[in-house]
Amino acid sequence: MQSPRFLRSAPASPSSLIRRAAGKVFLVGAGPGDPDLLTVKAARLLSAADVVVHDHLVGRGVMDLVPPAVRRIYVGKEAGRHALPQEDINRLLIRLAQEGLTVLRLKGGDPFIFGRGGEERAALLEAGLDCEIVPGITAAAGAASATGVPLTHRSHAQTLVLATGHLQDGSVNLDWPALARPRQTVVIYMGLGALPVICERLVEHGLPGSTPAAVIHAATTPTQAVVSARVDELADAVAAAGLQPPALIMIGEVVALEFDMHEVIRELQTA
Amino acid sequence: MQSPRFLRSAPASPSSLIRRAAGKVFLVGAGPGDPDLLTVKAARLLSAADVVVHDHLVGRGVMDLVPPAVRRIYVGKEAGRHALPQEDINRLLIRLAQEGLTVLRLKGGDPFIFGRGGEERAALLEAGLDCEIVPGITAAAGAASATGVPLTHRSHAQTLVLATGHLQDGSVNLDWPALARPRQTVVIYMGLGALPVICERLVEHGLPGSTPAAVIHAATTPTQAVVSARVDELADAVAAAGLQPPALIMIGEVVALEFDMHEVIRELQTA
Repeated sequence: MQSPRFLRSAPASPSSLIRRAAGKVFLVGAGPGDPDLLTVKAARLLSAADVVVHDHLVGRGVMDLVPPAVRRIYVGKEAGRHALPQEDINRLLIRLAQEGLTVLRLKGGDPFIFGRGGEERAALLEAGLDCEIVPGITAAAGAASATGVPLTHRSHAQTLVLATGHLQDGSVNLDWPALARPRQTVVIYMGLGALPVICERLVEHGLPGSTPAAVIHAATTPTQAVVSARVDELADAVAAAGLQPPALIMIGEVVALEFDMHEVIRELQTA
Repeated sequence: MQSPRFLRSAPASPSSLIRRAAGKVFLVGAGPGDPDLLTVKAARLLSAADVVVHDHLVGRGVMDLVPPAVRRIYVGKEAGRHALPQEDINRLLIRLAQEGLTVLRLKGGDPFIFGRGGEERAALLEAGLDCEIVPGITAAAGAASATGVPLTHRSHAQTLVLATGHLQDGSVNLDWPALARPRQTVVIYMGLGALPVICERLVEHGLPGSTPAAVIHAATTPTQAVVSARVDELADAVAAAGLQPPALIMIGEVVALEFDMHEVIRELQTA
């Protein structure tokens, strides 16, 4: 790797006039929500950090593991609005690290899968700061495990496509012909707001309307809920059930390995 | 979830003639190799199991965490040959659970992403046994974090495509037009044996030959090594460097955010 390496200095004595060496930022995936699905490394870093900078998508159970003495800074990212623009988050991380702090930048899922971790890392390296990435269980894998839907299967799906359905200026712009292909599983992150458009476009581009699909709300958490239906009936079924973000859309034959269509399931996590 | 639930019985007293209740199988992702990247739940289960049934792709560092008293059964899965056919693995898991054991079926990466977890789970449920899935960090996320290459990026890749390049009868059969599309990152698992064919087909189907790409061997382990090159020169560069399986192929503009092309990097894990 080419990232510069800095060792964190021992704490400066109060009388010292020497400027403290720069700190370090860990960009850490918090996983899908269940704190048991943190990595061993992430769990350890929660206690080792001076400050935790966290998102809306980080599970409450995970934040409960942060010791009370550790400072917390919430930088938001709810669907449709950001508490802080990305550039301000970058500047905040740089400032904290320059103060000599060990910074835990905690992101829902994995920092390098729809987490803008690449942008934060680039900003930190450009500022001459050390940055280490700790992967997390991405939401698609969390939702798959928690529901029993395998994302790939020799007989049904040899490819897994992850995309994001975030609305930009009220529209969603995806590579529809690619997403409508057969023999693959498509998982769309942050797509609940655009669900009717997404399902319509996929069918327009050749995906059979009878393709099994599901929306999973808050996978792996105590409020997990699932609605499954044919892709051409999914939006209505989800609206009827009143599912809210955060939610994942899963589309492909694999969904039918676990769910009958038109199923609405709410359950407490039993793990 | 619809899976039947059984509670594990207390151990039967030796004099008891009553048949023990069925055990349970945990299908657990072992992550990319570094034992620090196990989930907290997987790490706990390593000590709680009666028997661990493991693959070739489970990292040595992970297996070192299995207590000596826990029985281990190796069922292979090296590139090109399986120590046990899938059907025999399914039967083995069923038999162990029927003996009343807590079985930890440990798989490299995530059990539901190219791990055949869906097939094992279906066989277990059909036999009336309880099966719980514990996700793991999939190899793509491990390799991304360990190299610094973000898998998605607002400016370069809005879609992430995971595929498997396993040779079947000496040929590799992928959805080339889908994989050759722009503005996405493609990660191919188990594709090293077919690397020359994969790169050639992608360029034939319209992927620019200058697209940045890399092969990562044994990501997150002490023997991690990376070769990066343009996709039309990658196969030669990898052959010259002598990279061996297990390895991931990563293709897309995001690779250039971290690597200059024609780079060969070998490093000890510094985490």
